Amino acid sequence: MTLLKLPPLLDPHVHLREPGATHKEDWDTGTAAALAGGYTQVLAMPNTQPPITDAPALALSQTAARAKARCDYGIYLGAGADNMETAAALAPHTCGLKMYLDQTFGSLRMDDLASLMAHMARWPAHKPLAVHAEGRTVAAAILVAHLAGRAVHICHVSRKDEIELIHAAKERGLQVTCEVTPHHLFLTADTPSTLARPIREGFREVRPRLATEGDRLALWAHLSAIDCFATDHAPHTIPEKTGPNPPPGFPGLETAVALLLGAVHSGRLTVEDITLRMHTNIRRIFGLPDQPDTFIEIDPDLEWTVRAQEMFSRCGWSPWEGQTLRGRVVRTVLRGKVAYEYGKVSAQPGTGKDIAQYPIPNTKD
Amino acid sequence: MTLLKLPPLLDPHVHLREPGATHKEDWDTGTAAALAGGYTQVLAMPNTQPPITDAPALALSQTAARAKARCDYGIYLGAGADNMETAAALAPHTCGLKMYLDQTFGSLRMDDLASLMAHMARWPAHKPLAVHAEGRTVAAAILVAHLAGRAVHICHVSRKDEIELIHAAKERGLQVTCEVTPHHLFLTADTPSTLARPIREGFREVRPRLATEGDRLALWAHLSAIDCFATDHAPHTIPEKTGPNPPPGFPGLETAVALLLGAVHSGRLTVEDITLRMHTNIRRIFGLPDQPDTFIEIDPDLEWTVRAQEMFSRCGWSPWEGQTLRGRVVRTVLRGKVAYEYGKVSAQPGTGKDIAQYPIPNTKD
Repeated sequence: MTLLKLPPLLDPHVHLREPGATHKEDWDTGTAAALAGGYTQVLAMPNTQPPITDAPALALSQTAARAKARCDYGIYLGAGADNMETAAALAPHTCGLKMYLDQTFGSLRMDDLASLMAHMARWPAHKPLAVHAEGRTVAAAILVAHLAGRAVHICHVSRKDEIELIHAAKERGLQVTCEVTPHHLFLTADTPSTLARPIREGFREVRPRLATEGDRLALWAHLSAIDCFATDHAPHTIPEKTGPNPPPGFPGLETAVALLLGAVHSGRLTVEDITLRMHTNIRRIFGLPDQPDTFIEIDPDLEWTVRAQEMFSRCGWSPWEGQTLRGRVVRTVLRGKVAYEYGKVSAQPGTGKDIAQYPIPNTKD
Repeated sequence: MTLLKLPPLLDPHVHLREPGATHKEDWDTGTAAALAGGYTQVLAMPNTQPPITDAPALALSQTAARAKARCDYGIYLGAGADNMETAAALAPHTCGLKMYLDQTFGSLRMDDLASLMAHMARWPAHKPLAVHAEGRTVAAAILVAHLAGRAVHICHVSRKDEIELIHAAKERGLQVTCEVTPHHLFLTADTPSTLARPIREGFREVRPRLATEGDRLALWAHLSAIDCFATDHAPHTIPEKTGPNPPPGFPGLETAVALLLGAVHSGRLTVEDITLRMHTNIRRIFGLPDQPDTFIEIDPDLEWTVRAQEMFSRCGWSPWEGQTLRGRVVRTVLRGKVAYEYGKVSAQPGTGKDIAQYPIPNTKD
């Protein structure tokens, strides 16, 4: 058995649910899941309760994270219709600005052009700005960012027209980057019912929705335009997913790299493709600080069956339940210390660092 | 009394309602209204019944126009979710493609990014492409056009964020042009009730809606970014406007230049501003053919009171009813013949020409 030693995985898109919904996940369980999945830095989305749109809410999230996070993290600020100045002032204390421009989970949502333009103009040009945008909204976000002279990152691209547009925009030299989730790379609106263990109704709800086989194949066809693989880890509990209004979202941190290693085995990806999109590009796009002596070890041939019961995420289920995957992270080392090893998370709550408070990098680095 | 002799007015945006709703307007009454307003070329929108989305519908409109039009005209083709190839093939027989990307009157409406991209890519780059787009959709249309390497014309811009975006896009060198209507320059959502003759409920319905005073002032502040003044002449009958679901739209051909001359009297515009935006720019943007010996004469000081009863439009009302305006077209001369003079239209039905069938211009011109 030869283990692969790789740079650690970084995830620019996770929902850790704290503050406000710690019955789904919190900074402790979410970062334990991250380490078990091979991630040492995760960027947490702001659609919590309260949403992270001002200093008091950011402080709530920071306090919880400081006490409980087991891996390093960043906290996004959420864009609202009236917090442009507040957001820009808080920028140094965050990992980026998140704008919800289309249907999603939670109350953060902006529909109008004026707010989009105002945030794009005020948020510091060197800080990441990520958008949940679908369809034509992707085009709008790219243009408004271009006119503001700044880059924009498109979250969880899921459809053919969107990836074609983004690819064309990149070819025209526009400053746009994007991420794609494993579930949009491997599932369609039809597959949940055809899996060995079908994904039941409420569990299939996710935003953006699972798309068509044509959409899925287009993502693979435009692999060169995909900068990042992000999980959009979005845990909800089983009672919530089986209730009358199942909230959208899949957990993803503990299965992502194994799914992608499956594509290595089938010849669709190389390990370098994975490292590029789960480490190198994410570090560059989001300006993430270096973590010295930090790496993961992967057993590329280890076959294992997904059992949510054995996972660290609090949500208690996985869309991949019962699937046998090949390849798994067996060890995650953070700053020289084993943080996760063969099913056991050893990094303690409170040892994770906020990337906004890392020491300023030595300019010689 | 000194009459001003000016180039004829051209309108890139009128609804003449034929085929399908000749109780509102037809090619005869609509072009009579045009001549009375000083227009010698009007471009007719395709949201008729049937909508002009294929060859048979285009032929219906052409046949009616050929028999009845009193001034020259072009006919837009309407973009649908499945007529990209048909539309591109019919391009030479039209004045342009119209895409309805937001809420409007009629059934023509496209919501998805894929159709927008497909039409933008297939419609000939040298032919006009006009969009009804509001808010973020304006940004989407500009980006998709840019990626397709073509120009786009934004119809009836009505809001501050939209005109700011368009102005910024022009400054960045993007190929975008726009038009603004007199009603958005002179009315807001509040003014209908404050006019000497208030505009009653259903009569106020128009798309884009009348906006705020801040929006209106922003249009004036960005006058340099406004390429065209277009009427969006959109007649509906009085029973329709007073009914339970009043359709949106104002008639405009017979009042537009008088309203704008009012702005000349108040010092906000010059006559050159008007000629630039009602003739020169429209001819350039839409590639309209020259009309020899064609001009209008305006009495800039003539005071007159708007009376829909005296107008040529079949709709029978005007949002400006009872208002006293200063300045009026007194004579319209088309190809050397008086077509309109002091309240009388003398051009006969069938004398108007389709701009798509003008002789090919002498390249020495």
